[in-house]
Amino acid sequence: MVVVMTPEATDEDVARVVERVEGVGGEAFVSTGVVRTIVGLVGDIDSFHGLNLRSLPGVGAVHRISDPYKLVSRQHHPDRSTVWVGGVPIGPDTFTFIAGPCAVESAAQTLEAAEMAKAAGATLMRGGAYKPRTSPYAFQGLGVAGLEILSSVREATGLPVVTEVVDARDVPVVAEHADMLQVGTRNMANFGLLQAVGESGRPVLLKRGMTATIEEWLMAAEYIAQRGNLDVVLCERGIRTFEPATRNTLDISAVPVVQATSHLPIIVDPSHAAGRKDLVVPLSRAAIAVGADGVIVDVHPDPETALCDGPQALLGNELRLLAQAVRQLPPAVGRVDAGTVAREAAGVR
Amino acid sequence: MVVVMTPEATDEDVARVVERVEGVGGEAFVSTGVVRTIVGLVGDIDSFHGLNLRSLPGVGAVHRISDPYKLVSRQHHPDRSTVWVGGVPIGPDTFTFIAGPCAVESAAQTLEAAEMAKAAGATLMRGGAYKPRTSPYAFQGLGVAGLEILSSVREATGLPVVTEVVDARDVPVVAEHADMLQVGTRNMANFGLLQAVGESGRPVLLKRGMTATIEEWLMAAEYIAQRGNLDVVLCERGIRTFEPATRNTLDISAVPVVQATSHLPIIVDPSHAAGRKDLVVPLSRAAIAVGADGVIVDVHPDPETALCDGPQALLGNELRLLAQAVRQLPPAVGRVDAGTVAREAAGVR
Amino acid sequence: MVVVMTPEATDEDVARVVERVEGVGGEAFVSTGVVRTIVGLVGDIDSFHGLNLRSLPGVGAVHRISDPYKLVSRQHHPDRSTVWVGGVPIGPDTFTFIAGPCAVESAAQTLEAAEMAKAAGATLMRGGAYKPRTSPYAFQGLGVAGLEILSSVREATGLPVVTEVVDARDVPVVAEHADMLQVGTRNMANFGLLQAVGESGRPVLLKRGMTATIEEWLMAAEYIAQRGNLDVVLCERGIRTFEPATRNTLDISAVPVVQATSHLPIIVDPSHAAGRKDLVVPLSRAAIAVGADGVIVDVHPDPETALCDGPQALLGNELRLLAQAVRQLPPAVGRVDAGTVAREAAGVR
Amino acid sequence: MVVVMTPEATDEDVARVVERVEGVGGEAFVSTGVVRTIVGLVGDIDSFHGLNLRSLPGVGAVHRISDPYKLVSRQHHPDRSTVWVGGVPIGPDTFTFIAGPCAVESAAQTLEAAEMAKAAGATLMRGGAYKPRTSPYAFQGLGVAGLEILSSVREATGLPVVTEVVDARDVPVVAEHADMLQVGTRNMANFGLLQAVGESGRPVLLKRGMTATIEEWLMAAEYIAQRGNLDVVLCERGIRTFEPATRNTLDISAVPVVQATSHLPIIVDPSHAAGRKDLVVPLSRAAIAVGADGVIVDVHPDPETALCDGPQALLGNELRLLAQAVRQLPPAVGRVDAGTVAREAAGVR
Repeated sequence: MVVVMTPEATDEDVARVVERVEGVGGEAFVSTGVVRTIVGLVGDIDSFHGLNLRSLPGVGAVHRISDPYKLVSRQHHPDRSTVWVGGVPIGPDTFTFIAGPCAVESAAQTLEAAEMAKAAGATLMRGGAYKPRTSPYAFQGLGVAGLEILSSVREATGLPVVTEVVDARDVPVVAEHADMLQVGTRNMANFGLLQAVGESGRPVLLKRGMTATIEEWLMAAEYIAQRGNLDVVLCERGIRTFEPATRNTLDISAVPVVQATSHLPIIVDPSHAAGRKDLVVPLSRAAIAVGADGVIVDVHPDPETALCDGPQALLGNELRLLAQAVRQLPPAVGRVDAGTVAREAAGVR
Repeated sequence: MVVVMTPEATDEDVARVVERVEGVGGEAFVSTGVVRTIVGLVGDIDSFHGLNLRSLPGVGAVHRISDPYKLVSRQHHPDRSTVWVGGVPIGPDTFTFIAGPCAVESAAQTLEAAEMAKAAGATLMRGGAYKPRTSPYAFQGLGVAGLEILSSVREATGLPVVTEVVDARDVPVVAEHADMLQVGTRNMANFGLLQAVGESGRPVLLKRGMTATIEEWLMAAEYIAQRGNLDVVLCERGIRTFEPATRNTLDISAVPVVQATSHLPIIVDPSHAAGRKDLVVPLSRAAIAVGADGVIVDVHPDPETALCDGPQALLGNELRLLAQAVRQLPPAVGRVDAGTVAREAAGVR
Repeated sequence: MVVVMTPEATDEDVARVVERVEGVGGEAFVSTGVVRTIVGLVGDIDSFHGLNLRSLPGVGAVHRISDPYKLVSRQHHPDRSTVWVGGVPIGPDTFTFIAGPCAVESAAQTLEAAEMAKAAGATLMRGGAYKPRTSPYAFQGLGVAGLEILSSVREATGLPVVTEVVDARDVPVVAEHADMLQVGTRNMANFGLLQAVGESGRPVLLKRGMTATIEEWLMAAEYIAQRGNLDVVLCERGIRTFEPATRNTLDISAVPVVQATSHLPIIVDPSHAAGRKDLVVPLSRAAIAVGADGVIVDVHPDPETALCDGPQALLGNELRLLAQAVRQLPPAVGRVDAGTVAREAAGVR
Repeated sequence: MVVVMTPEATDEDVARVVERVEGVGGEAFVSTGVVRTIVGLVGDIDSFHGLNLRSLPGVGAVHRISDPYKLVSRQHHPDRSTVWVGGVPIGPDTFTFIAGPCAVESAAQTLEAAEMAKAAGATLMRGGAYKPRTSPYAFQGLGVAGLEILSSVREATGLPVVTEVVDARDVPVVAEHADMLQVGTRNMANFGLLQAVGESGRPVLLKRGMTATIEEWLMAAEYIAQRGNLDVVLCERGIRTFEPATRNTLDISAVPVVQATSHLPIIVDPSHAAGRKDLVVPLSRAAIAVGADGVIVDVHPDPETALCDGPQALLGNELRLLAQAVRQLPPAVGRVDAGTVAREAAGVR
């Protein structure tokens, strides 16, 4: 940490800062400038937080220098991690294609979407039984009945299931049916939910809050990790900006930024970022090329009747183009298909 | 609703839109332009949502024209509402000053802060027993012990209590001790929590999500109202922008914008918006002058040792300046002190 | 400046930083932490910029600690300045009301608007002869003919003229007719124009770039000051955010933030920030209460036919309410009407 | 255009709108809803702008439906364009790699950087002789001397030159030395400059304003096109958001969004978007995969001593990786190297 004194700070003000820091066992290095004095702190950063240095007289600003997250950082865990979901890897060597309908509407629609996803090369299936909606008048999901549909579709297709949980009280029932629990963008800072999925025993897909910085997102992952669950996969899904042409702005740079600082895998959701079907294929290509560990995409057998986010769901020609990109581009950036690895790991030939 | 067809849309595409709209009992008015055709929809908007018109061939865009919220709108409730909290009004004729520590740390600190608040003219006390924190390593609040401190401080000072609830499972115990439940900025879209406070029987202070549009914020209020609770007070507390000089950017315009469209009262939190003590007094003045129904401010007997948000807590001279502003400015914009009204309502002279 | 080394930095990397700093006559204080080393630099900051320290091996980040602006800073000029425009002050003790049409359309319209402005209490007149427009198909202003209208209206009303200049090549002719040159939001970073108005011999009204940080805005003022012109008045006019209810988000906090760090006067433009007539009066009230040195507002005798920004121009009842606020509120925050001071300065009673 | 009346609008209010529209030769279709009436306008949109409908009584909002740009739109020019720069194409079938130093500092540095660029596969050279800088105390470029260096380096390497012009008065001299004129992010809305480059007879590289919407950017291109110059290439270079990990947020979605609506070529500048060397290669890969028509990248023989943006300039291993990506990825998305096409066009084998 670095403490920057104001130009008006007195020697007593500086001495008080030093004294406090030393009082909790830290060291303070004073650099006296022409206009300002700065104090560099060395020691246990958590102990410094309690000092409330920013409130002391003569203190202008306090800059944190090191990253605030620990368990999810590469600092003490330099190798990037692989998270296994129902036998399918998500990690640095593979590329994992996840697809399915935004919302589970019926057994038939879910099965058909899962079969479309599988045919296009997906190795994990997504589908929402609980939907957080901005409007209380919008479709809120089928709940437990939706979870049961997902279970039976997994049975039929062999695709492990990724599904969202929106309330800490639902974590046990969702964990019973799902292979991976998704925490959605609106719940990224719902700390009770983060702790609950941290104790669920299931891998977690943590979407970025649409207005969260990368650091806040990694702190949310830290909440999960702190409860003993390091099987966290991050998902970039667009951030809120001033640009109206897309629903959100896909922050493609977040992929290499996260990979430089955290060992957790990171995938991209182009469907929710764009909110427009015609952008899903080019953005998926960009995600593969930038080095993402996977993509998650909306497909629906009949987008015109979808109860949720129909305008962004793929089918027909776009899905074929996506399948082709997912087959051809990952090898060009040194990635193996996650399905191949999963089959090998399972001893299947 | 207005449906805008693409320039390439065929007559069949237009006919399909009309047919769907009429299929649910609506009327469709077709305006054929030189380049594009637009279709105006008249009828029950909720029935149109299910049509998924944006997914139909030839549809370029669908614009909603009317507001999506109902219970909190002024449309059928033109008079602005007053919400009573422990006998104190928050509404269009009064100005309500709420103050207290960000976090309840101890009985002594809370009592002292409440007495400071009362001496400065506050008629409601704030204080957090549950703190949602970005870092899992930061102070998370005293929980039930904190609620008990708040109860006893209300006993001692006569100030009704506003306190935050962060988890739907805690709503009953918080409602037992508090006069008003606060939903914080990070939980504005935590729909399970919104529904729980909607059923709590207590008035709710709903902070704006730091990245929520005003419309999303009013939809969150609609979630609460839909559960039968119309005693909702909105609180503008700054939005996330690119400007680093303040923690968030206080969106002062939100006050008249909300008042034009919703009947709910709206107050301002300058402390959390700015994150800087020196801005709290000028921003409080601005809030009064723009027509806010109240302000909520951090005070702390010893900001240097505060466990949470010390740098923004007022004391001494700044608190005196704030007390003065709160006494002098509201009458200049036609407002009566809420405390005076509360005493009159209670038959006290 | 503080240089933060990466965790992997070697002793040689640190030594290289120290050597470079000392090579230009600076001092470097090394603080060796558990994980990272930080180096505090003391000396002439401009000489450090050329060192390109961020590119050296082992350097993670370089934080500037002091403000980059000098001439406009309060550091060596602690008293806030007053700028005089045609005999009217804009500064810390007064409140200056500027009004007029967005665009000069005709002699009759400009005169009528100026008379409305004067009747409402304005002491300076605004009006645009050159209009920067997003669309090349929109009205671009009357040019020199518009300047001549402004001159004649000043003659008729006695109100000094504030008008925008959009091209460095036009500065001489605009300076000939205007009492104050306005640099608009789209030109805040047009450095050639800033230098030209810096040499114009006229006071300058520098609007904030709609996406400029406060620091960038003050650097733009520094460009003007560097050419010998310290008669710069800043104008907050809203910043671009995700909120669609207003055209831009008025950053009301910018007023006290600027006043804390710069000696230049600062006024507020609520009309362009909001883009909505109904918000102009409450936002003007907020501007006065927060401590702005003035406001600048659009008025138009017939907004329905205005060629530019009609929807935000005041007339009738709103203008009366604004006139009342401008009369009553400044004294409540310790300000004198600029017109009174101007008359006293001119020896008029 | 669609005019939405307020719920309180009277029949007279609606009639007045219709009358005005018909008065300029348009047609108005009235749709009377339960709560609101909407009026669809058909006819010449430019004539409607002058009506100032938003200022009429009873009008709540006016929505533009069609795009405001014409010459740069695909509507009447469905095929995407190719712009030729010194014999090198930028367009839909090729991939063009542009590289060079941010600033021209000396003949030796520029030549060395150009040779690095050429060796890595670049077919156009960039380099700035005029630098728009936030601080008046920063290096502002060599001016005409820099242009002469660029000319001689083109002579030596055969690479056509792209260079920035920051002031309309400099357009003739820059056009004399450069093959393509760059308009930088800070000048995107400098309409005088746009018009000047529109008359320069040179192709223009138009960077997106860091806070401009895509529509505003295309309107800026329209300014250039309106002066008879359709040889405009757009360059996405990151937008300002709340995320601090990168200097700006590369809006990768802008590439397919622009390509869907405008026929102009579009390239990507990952160096200035990220501001970090380690992101340039992954973001360049993403740009190729998303379908960009080219990339423009900073290289410098000695980033440690660069006078401008050293931290983002590539050399050594990163440049090799970039060269490899630029060779291998474009064919995977159906693109030919622009250099190959240039040589064929020139009859070179």
